Amino acid sequence: MSTFGQYFRVTTYGESHCKSVGCIVDGCPPGMELTEEDIQPQLTRRRPGQSAITTPRNEQDLVEIQSGTEFGITLGTPIGMKVMNKDQRPKDYGGSTMDMFPRPSHADWTYLEKYGVKASSGGGRSSARETIGRVSAGAIAEKYLSLTHGVEIIAFVASVGNEFLFPPTPEHPTQATNPKFLNLINTITREHVDSPEFLPIRCPDKEAADRMKSLVEKFRDAHDSIGGTVTCVIRNVPSGLGEPCFDKLEALIGHAMLSIPSTKAATISQAQDTVTYDSTPGVLEAKGRHDPCVVPRAIPIVESMAALAIMDATMAQLARSASRQRLPPLKGTLPTKETLLGGAKEPVAEKEASKS
Amino acid sequence: MSTFGQYFRVTTYGESHCKSVGCIVDGCPPGMELTEEDIQPQLTRRRPGQSAITTPRNEQDLVEIQSGTEFGITLGTPIGMKVMNKDQRPKDYGGSTMDMFPRPSHADWTYLEKYGVKASSGGGRSSARETIGRVSAGAIAEKYLSLTHGVEIIAFVASVGNEFLFPPTPEHPTQATNPKFLNLINTITREHVDSPEFLPIRCPDKEAADRMKSLVEKFRDAHDSIGGTVTCVIRNVPSGLGEPCFDKLEALIGHAMLSIPSTKAATISQAQDTVTYDSTPGVLEAKGRHDPCVVPRAIPIVESMAALAIMDATMAQLARSASRQRLPPLKGTLPTKETLLGGAKEPVAEKEASKS
Amino acid sequence: MSTFGQYFRVTTYGESHCKSVGCIVDGCPPGMELTEEDIQPQLTRRRPGQSAITTPRNEQDLVEIQSGTEFGITLGTPIGMKVMNKDQRPKDYGGSTMDMFPRPSHADWTYLEKYGVKASSGGGRSSARETIGRVSAGAIAEKYLSLTHGVEIIAFVASVGNEFLFPPTPEHPTQATNPKFLNLINTITREHVDSPEFLPIRCPDKEAADRMKSLVEKFRDAHDSIGGTVTCVIRNVPSGLGEPCFDKLEALIGHAMLSIPSTKAATISQAQDTVTYDSTPGVLEAKGRHDPCVVPRAIPIVESMAALAIMDATMAQLARSASRQRLPPLKGTLPTKETLLGGAKEPVAEKEASKS
Amino acid sequence: MSTFGQYFRVTTYGESHCKSVGCIVDGCPPGMELTEEDIQPQLTRRRPGQSAITTPRNEQDLVEIQSGTEFGITLGTPIGMKVMNKDQRPKDYGGSTMDMFPRPSHADWTYLEKYGVKASSGGGRSSARETIGRVSAGAIAEKYLSLTHGVEIIAFVASVGNEFLFPPTPEHPTQATNPKFLNLINTITREHVDSPEFLPIRCPDKEAADRMKSLVEKFRDAHDSIGGTVTCVIRNVPSGLGEPCFDKLEALIGHAMLSIPSTKAATISQAQDTVTYDSTPGVLEAKGRHDPCVVPRAIPIVESMAALAIMDATMAQLARSASRQRLPPLKGTLPTKETLLGGAKEPVAEKEASKS
Repeated sequence: MSTFGQYFRVTTYGESHCKSVGCIVDGCPPGMELTEEDIQPQLTRRRPGQSAITTPRNEQDLVEIQSGTEFGITLGTPIGMKVMNKDQRPKDYGGSTMDMFPRPSHADWTYLEKYGVKASSGGGRSSARETIGRVSAGAIAEKYLSLTHGVEIIAFVASVGNEFLFPPTPEHPTQATNPKFLNLINTITREHVDSPEFLPIRCPDKEAADRMKSLVEKFRDAHDSIGGTVTCVIRNVPSGLGEPCFDKLEALIGHAMLSIPSTKAATISQAQDTVTYDSTPGVLEAKGRHDPCVVPRAIPIVESMAALAIMDATMAQLARSASRQRLPPLKGTLPTKETLLGGAKEPVAEKEASKS
Repeated sequence: MSTFGQYFRVTTYGESHCKSVGCIVDGCPPGMELTEEDIQPQLTRRRPGQSAITTPRNEQDLVEIQSGTEFGITLGTPIGMKVMNKDQRPKDYGGSTMDMFPRPSHADWTYLEKYGVKASSGGGRSSARETIGRVSAGAIAEKYLSLTHGVEIIAFVASVGNEFLFPPTPEHPTQATNPKFLNLINTITREHVDSPEFLPIRCPDKEAADRMKSLVEKFRDAHDSIGGTVTCVIRNVPSGLGEPCFDKLEALIGHAMLSIPSTKAATISQAQDTVTYDSTPGVLEAKGRHDPCVVPRAIPIVESMAALAIMDATMAQLARSASRQRLPPLKGTLPTKETLLGGAKEPVAEKEASKS
Repeated sequence: MSTFGQYFRVTTYGESHCKSVGCIVDGCPPGMELTEEDIQPQLTRRRPGQSAITTPRNEQDLVEIQSGTEFGITLGTPIGMKVMNKDQRPKDYGGSTMDMFPRPSHADWTYLEKYGVKASSGGGRSSARETIGRVSAGAIAEKYLSLTHGVEIIAFVASVGNEFLFPPTPEHPTQATNPKFLNLINTITREHVDSPEFLPIRCPDKEAADRMKSLVEKFRDAHDSIGGTVTCVIRNVPSGLGEPCFDKLEALIGHAMLSIPSTKAATISQAQDTVTYDSTPGVLEAKGRHDPCVVPRAIPIVESMAALAIMDATMAQLARSASRQRLPPLKGTLPTKETLLGGAKEPVAEKEASKS
Repeated sequence: MSTFGQYFRVTTYGESHCKSVGCIVDGCPPGMELTEEDIQPQLTRRRPGQSAITTPRNEQDLVEIQSGTEFGITLGTPIGMKVMNKDQRPKDYGGSTMDMFPRPSHADWTYLEKYGVKASSGGGRSSARETIGRVSAGAIAEKYLSLTHGVEIIAFVASVGNEFLFPPTPEHPTQATNPKFLNLINTITREHVDSPEFLPIRCPDKEAADRMKSLVEKFRDAHDSIGGTVTCVIRNVPSGLGEPCFDKLEALIGHAMLSIPSTKAATISQAQDTVTYDSTPGVLEAKGRHDPCVVPRAIPIVESMAALAIMDATMAQLARSASRQRLPPLKGTLPTKETLLGGAKEPVAEKEASKS
């Protein structure tokens, strides 16, 4: 269905030609400062060639919080959010304009098979506007993770076609082992990625960004499109995330990333991750191909889905450790975190108390 | 959380003083005619003393479909719905106006314990406006059930305080065995319940409605409130609904009814049902106490929750029987519906089988 | 489906004539002492006329923990539990013994409509043995609630037919206002309910228990059955439980109680509750009718379902408050638990730390 | 948690050293022939170097169905399954044998962080025995998909280290475009993969299998391990599977594959898929690295997770189309499957409509 997450639960709605698109975030912790200004920057970055940091705010795609906050504070109740659609007229099906055939490489056929009715917008929910709900919710998750655990999430374009930020060498066939890459993921910031010199590509190296830009222009001129790779760094991930068996962290993140539109064309999709359970830097890669600019625009979407996956796993783990902390200490039959690592039983609780 | 249902899934948002209230309905079958006109009547009946049938449309609480339909047809995608709030200013907490104490018999204390922050509206989500989302979604469920199974759902006020539609007699200590009652539930219609002579009480007998009205006025004049009982008839319920174990139909309906605001005051709540698995008429009763008019206004809410519970159970059963119909016939070790009741397996399996 | 709960999730399996019945409990907090001895007493009380406290252990229905513990400590991983069935032979359908007609007042017809195949045991999952899974899981929930919050759950028989523990009087038409009743629910213990003088009825008053026993014997001799009412006291319920909207605590408890087999016969079922959000004593009543002894045997089942509902709501609330506690303090725009009630931000965490 | 799927819902339990491992399958369609003989072959293939087709049945890891079937027919109720553990003794923690340090590259540390208690088996649920539940459930899903849609799922080893079934060439840098590969995926069978000449590697080409075998032996001799790639072909996938937004088919399959143990080591994991929505052949690839034989043993696990993902999506789509088929035909405002593709609405709606 249209819901992601068990604890921090996002439900989205909206197609291309309806009144509005948006979402409900259920389960957001109460007592967090939150206004539209926390959400709008990522929505603005979603729009073609925009940087929320360096360019004047675009007047389109303005998000409005409908509920769940008061005086700029989250209440713990569902947060409704909405972005108006500009073009709300569905396509006219009458007379000769009616298209009787599904467009190749669009979701038209699949949607007809699935729903039995043919929406004017063809793909309907497969429209790029559907991502507005994800990005809005992701911005909230990201704020919570940043405030409580110092989590930092930064995505950037690592390749377009065969143009790479770190071209393969015999020594480093992939960027994963390249020392320059390892240094970059420890220092990269979102502001840096959105530097004017790297726009519109969002590859944090001017020379590589220029190479990629030329390639995109070549494909655009040929009315073709070209895919690429996004690398996503997640720093300060809390330890112990992910559930054994079916909900391992890599499975949750893989699910999140592969749900992004255009990660699979009539071609091949690919998702890679080296996210670790502890606070060491992690890496996500999602490859997409749809139109000349889809990869740079995917940056805030990849960041949002990473935030949603980490947020849900964090809340699951908080719930578990909170329930354990209430129990009386064990008499010693089984080693525990306290007996093995030393310290009193409730280090998390104590730390929390002293922090705030 | 704020979601009801597994197959026909409703997620609501909104408090008293936020911008809007509404919901997302996920899982609505595609290909059904649906416009705001299918939803508005029940919303209008929710407002004090209104009949959508007999009075001019009230200009308040107008629902707007945001997504999920095109040309008045459901697409199968999430249906976003929204009703604007009139008073969107949260209460000023500054200076002397700040109330420091929870109001007795309100949810103030509970909400502070639960969320740790105090919303201006006190109860926040326990506000009556929260029911707008339920009623909007319930109207969609009801339309589907009516179109596909001829389901009819009619609720009416059966008692206010000790004033009964069918007063207890030695022979019939409850209405359940009273022949007049049994006749009524076979014939009652929503139009009849909303007849001007029965308003604002919505008890389908003028003499009883007058008795109840007098009692309500007496309590109103004493600044007190009085509870009552709602009976809900559900006709033509499909057979085989409800899941064994934890999700029996009566458990789902009990859950649905007890989730209605004001079914439990600082006093005792009660829910009864005689809903049967097959198409014979069923009866639901939910008792509430909050203010002089809460019971008549609860009528469309009780009907909506009944529709949501029946809808979800219907879709669960459709999914099960659709999956069974695809299987090849058994060789006879175990009796089946076909061998016991006669007739071939339902044709969909054959057709689908030949297709693939 | 066959799952109850979102956080403390119980999934059950098993019919009357299969190899075993049992369940998986997923989400149990790690680090709690747990062996079969914590679970067996309630299973033994389920059997006809048994008291786990006063009678020698019955050798039947012995539960075996399959997983999720080590050296008698919960690991936090799923706890599999199993009770062997004694009679594992399904009924022979061959030849003249095959029954072609559903038994009146059994689930035979409903199951055929629902599943399309006819299990030998007729009702299949509606068998009383299905409750073994609930009771096993409930015992674990109860232990956690008892260890961490001092929760006490005691159910007893309040009426059989028209024989009442507290017969209605003009002054006290229901027991709810009767001072003797209010005193009883503050002091009653499970040991008291299982006193030999109250067995097999489990009504904690010898004179009333004798009246009820005579009535049951009369019905038994007439090959008939008689229903009754169970009252369930829940003491020390944590505050803030239940979710707004659809998952109010009374809705969760109503759902739990109405899912118990035999709470609805071809007749009328009823569930009442006065459970409060805070630690004051609460009351649950569930009425059943099936065979002369079903009400006394329902006692541990009612207690188990109460424990499961309270446990799930407790874990949901722990998750919420744990997520709030991590946030930095607010600057004062909105009143919080800390500013209104005084004290530092993290009283729960501090308290936990000092406790252990 | 330990549950996969919404419609065909699998919940697993069990660690290495507990009594048994197993699962509950809830939502299996009723009326399907099913015995242990349908499940055992894949379990046997899980064991080192086994072929269920060509070798005598191994007497270990025998699955026992506990419930949900009668006379070899599924009842539609939960199917409990269980495999006894051979070594049920948890490790002795007393005295000098107690290991105080987490083993590098094991889940010891993560589990201690997550659960706060240290299970004897270190990883606990991350043990390979946990996959027994998945494979048992997957075999049931596979049987249903085969019977009803002719689905065929065949996985094989495509590479071990740098030894490839189809080595990269300038013309075909990946196997995806190689005509020999495209031919293979149209014809490959499970029997072929398990041919004695391809064992124990399960690469369907003797020369390539021999190259891989030599490489594995080299790593084994060096006490090291080597990863590889599994390709999974899924033929005859029903059309219209996957839900828009978060539950696209590729996201579900990615989630399923990345949840398999050892798909991520202290190294890099990778999942690829080219599964299409329609019946054309699809390809899944999952790379793992753990011990010299983990890739060949992963074959039945990859097949099982593919079956579980496809099964759940199939049941979701069956539920949707069954609910649509009940609706009356549209008057023509929106194109439908019937108006675009010709033919009447499917007959089940008519038949059911006439019934009620």
